[in-house]
This record gives sequence, structure tokens and C-alpha cells, in this order.
Amino acid sequence: MDLSKRIDRAMMNAITRAQGNGEGAPGRLAAALNYAVTPGGARIRPTICLSVALACGDDRPALSDRAATALELIHCASLVHDDLPAFDNADFRRGKPTVHLAFSEPLAVLTGDSLIIAAFDVLADVADDDALRALKLTRLLARHTGMPHGICAGQGWESESKVDLGAYHRSKTAALFVAATQMGAVAAGHEPEAWAELGARIGEAFQVADDLRDALYDETALGKPAGQDAIHQRPSAVEEYGVQGAIRHLQDILSGAISSIPSCPGEAGLAQLVRLYAERMTPVAPVRV
Amino acid sequence: MDLSKRIDRAMMNAITRAQGNGEGAPGRLAAALNYAVTPGGARIRPTICLSVALACGDDRPALSDRAATALELIHCASLVHDDLPAFDNADFRRGKPTVHLAFSEPLAVLTGDSLIIAAFDVLADVADDDALRALKLTRLLARHTGMPHGICAGQGWESESKVDLGAYHRSKTAALFVAATQMGAVAAGHEPEAWAELGARIGEAFQVADDLRDALYDETALGKPAGQDAIHQRPSAVEEYGVQGAIRHLQDILSGAISSIPSCPGEAGLAQLVRLYAERMTPVAPVRV
Repeated sequence: MDLSKRIDRAMMNAITRAQGNGEGAPGRLAAALNYAVTPGGARIRPTICLSVALACGDDRPALSDRAATALELIHCASLVHDDLPAFDNADFRRGKPTVHLAFSEPLAVLTGDSLIIAAFDVLADVADDDALRALKLTRLLARHTGMPHGICAGQGWESESKVDLGAYHRSKTAALFVAATQMGAVAAGHEPEAWAELGARIGEAFQVADDLRDALYDETALGKPAGQDAIHQRPSAVEEYGVQGAIRHLQDILSGAISSIPSCPGEAGLAQLVRLYAERMTPVAPVRV
Repeated sequence: MDLSKRIDRAMMNAITRAQGNGEGAPGRLAAALNYAVTPGGARIRPTICLSVALACGDDRPALSDRAATALELIHCASLVHDDLPAFDNADFRRGKPTVHLAFSEPLAVLTGDSLIIAAFDVLADVADDDALRALKLTRLLARHTGMPHGICAGQGWESESKVDLGAYHRSKTAALFVAATQMGAVAAGHEPEAWAELGARIGEAFQVADDLRDALYDETALGKPAGQDAIHQRPSAVEEYGVQGAIRHLQDILSGAISSIPSCPGEAGLAQLVRLYAERMTPVAPVRV
């Protein structure tokens, strides 16, 4: 089965479980859960997670599916909360109205909360044989999601008067990519440490690519408001290096990502995946790495 | 060590861990985490959890401390999100400004998210010997917290035009009390099923007591806005039975709670605890059960 089918099926299972088959559950919140995770788009984080799991042998595919799903649920939750009026106050996401506009602000808060909880539920609902790996996965997910160094911390930095830029970037964007590579490895029985750098570099590349898109594209092309970094005076690679400088920086990061891949059976396939992302990521011309 | 000291110590450990000892973490969000869980107040849910664990032998006290802490972190998270302008728009909680007023609305959303994640992290950060129990605890916490039947679902019902009142009460208030009794039992190696009824009845009693307080007390006595059920046209036991009827209903529920306690070494002590809560809960005169 190809990766996107595995991810779609696992995501649908998780959402159906959270919706409770319509029995005794509030219908609008149940609908909002599905709305928040569809259309799936690139599903980049779970794809990276499963790719690393496969490169490591993927000896327990049901568990790596769960790891991938948990990551994507958390990512979707973070988008719903980030779009709230108190944060980005965004009207559109993935080309459709944001959850708080399509449903309501209370339901958007609850949708994010429910998706976070569903992510941890997915990791806990495993066979006894997978218990030790599932707990490791849970700890990794919590570390890269919450405080002090996960994506919540990343958002939290935006409320500080003095920002630690390194910590901000590591937690705001890179954290969930580090979670993706590490959780893929752990799901397949490998240790997570060696996989941190690949995730960090892919995350950094995505941040630079996102900064470039935000600066260069309009709302129609993005499916969400453009020029937000400048409006909110957020630190951006385009502001720091200029457009061409940011593109060169992106190429360097991706070369580094490929060099950092730990020795494993699927090393060549993973390098190919990063090259593919590199081409997709660059908004002006294909990057050669 | 008495229960409140165990709970305070375990809560402080969890918050200190989430704050990251101030290194590389955003300071205001770190401060908001502590603000949201203090002052502790009655810590009712973790007290019930530990009381059940003790009644079941409490053979792994470090694990039951974690179960109790996870419950309280989730409870505090739910209060922070419920107080947001989009929900109750509350100015005061536990006699001090709510998190979104003391810090900001973005930080209140992130505080809730971070506390939810910390709750699952606390349960995952266990020794290998505790892995199977920890996963059971995680599943119970997720079930009683998220969708379709946890406290998120309870809040979700408030966005429905047609409300399933039974499901609403079970999920909005009772769910976390059922989690408390069941997680106490599981932390001590017992099966959770027999403990659901005690939790449900205590939860129901708290809802009735809360309705009574909301109707009878003023803001100063409550430490939060009064008369909210009437203002928000929420279903309430006082509306349904009148004040005296609601007090009688409370007594009946608590008698039922005591009868429902499963046979275990600490049965008598647990019954005593419920009687103590009964006295504390009744806003007009001590209830005798």
C-alpha cells in the first residue's frame, strides 16, 4: 500500500473513533473534527514518519501508522488553534474557511483540544507487545508538542518581548519534524537520537520555504492569507537573507539533511524523498541538492 | 505522607518539568502554567484517585501519583479554556483573574494545550515495569477527556441545538470523576469497570452541588461569577427540582455512591471520604447520608 493510502486510512480510523460513530456525541464537534483534518494535503509529517519507519525495517506497520496519525492529528490541532482570532485570525486554511468561521470559536478551541487528546489516544490504544514502544512514542510526541520545547513553546515565544530566535525556530516548526523522524525510527524499534538532525534540518527547510511562500505568493496561491510575517513582524528568512539568499540557504539546509541520514537499509530511498521535497518546496526554481 | 502533600509535590514536579527549568522556554507561558494550577484548592479529582488507589492497596504509589497529577492537569486545562471569552468569558477563577486576563488570550489557549500535553507526558514518563498500567491509564484519561464522551464532548454539547441531556451531564462533569476512580484502581493494579459507578455518582453529586452554589451564592463567595446557569440558559438541577428538591437529590446520589463502592480493603475509608465530601458539598445545611 502506498504511504498516502496508509495515512488516509489510519487518519480516518482515528477520526471515526473520536466521532464515536455518532452515538451519544455532539454532532457539530464531531463534524468539526473531520473538517479540521480534511482535505489532507501533503501530509508531510506522517509521510516523513512512515518513510523513516520503512527505512528502519517497519517491523510493526500498525504501530508506525499510529505514530504517523498522532503526528498529523497534533499538526491539524495546532493549525486550528493558530488560526483563532486571538492568534493569526485567519479566514482561510487549505482553501476553505477556518474551523472557527465554519463552525464557531468555542468549537474551534474544542476541536484542537479533542485532536490533541485523540493523538495520545491513538498511541495508547496498542497491543501489549507494543507497550514499551508506544510509551517511547508518547514521550517523544509530548516533548515535541508541549512545553518547554515543543510547538506550544514555539507559539509561546510570540508572546515574549525578548525572543530566543534559535529556541523559537526549533520549537515552532522544527519540533514536529524531529518528532516525525524520531517517531518513525522508534515505531520500527530503533533508537531516536540519531534521527533528530534529519528532522531538524527538514523542519528548518520547511520554515525557510514557508517564509519564501509567505513573501512571494498571494492568498489565492497559498490558500491562506499572505504576507503575514511582515504584518505580524515575525522573524523570517526572507527578511534576514533576501529572496535569493533564502533560496540558497534552503539548498544548503537540504544538502545537510541528506548527509545527516543515519546508516540504515533504506538510506537511499530517504535521500530521494528529501530531494523530492526540495523540488516541491522551492517557490521560484527547482533546487538541486 | 498525607494525600494533599503527595498531590502538591507531584503537581509541582509536573509543572517544573513543563517549565523546563527556565532554559530555552518562553517565560510568560511557563509562568502561566504555574498560575493556572495554583492555588490548588480542594484538588478533589486527584484526591479521589489516590483514595481509590489506597483502597486498592496502592502497590505502586509513584504511578498513582502520576495518575492523580494527570487528572488535575487536565482539569486545570479545562478551566482555563472554559474561562476564555468564547466560552464563559469569566474574569475570576479561584479568587484571582483568569489566565486570559492575567496573561493574554493566546497564552490562555497555549496554557490549556500545554497542560493537556503535560498530563499525557506524566503518564508516559514511567519505568518499563509500569508500561502496561500506564497505557491503560492513558486510554482511560483520553476516553474521559476527549471526544466522543469526555469533557470536550460535554462542552461540545453546549453548541448543539438539540441536547442529549444524559450524555451532556455524563461527559461534562461526571467523566473526569469516573476517570478519577477508574485510574486510581488501575494505578493499583485493579480492573477499572467496577469503579465507574462510584465516579459517576460523585460526579453527578458535584454537578448538583455546583448548580446549587451557582444559584445560591454570590461572586465573592464563589470566587467566580454567580448565576451563570440562568444567564447562559444551561440545564440545572435547581431549575429542574427547586432548591430543596436539589438538596434531597444530592443526598440520594451520595447514598448511592457509598453503596456502589466495590468490595476492597479500604472500603470503609472510601465511604468516609464520600461522607466528608457530602458535608462540604451541601451549600445550605450538612447532608446526612
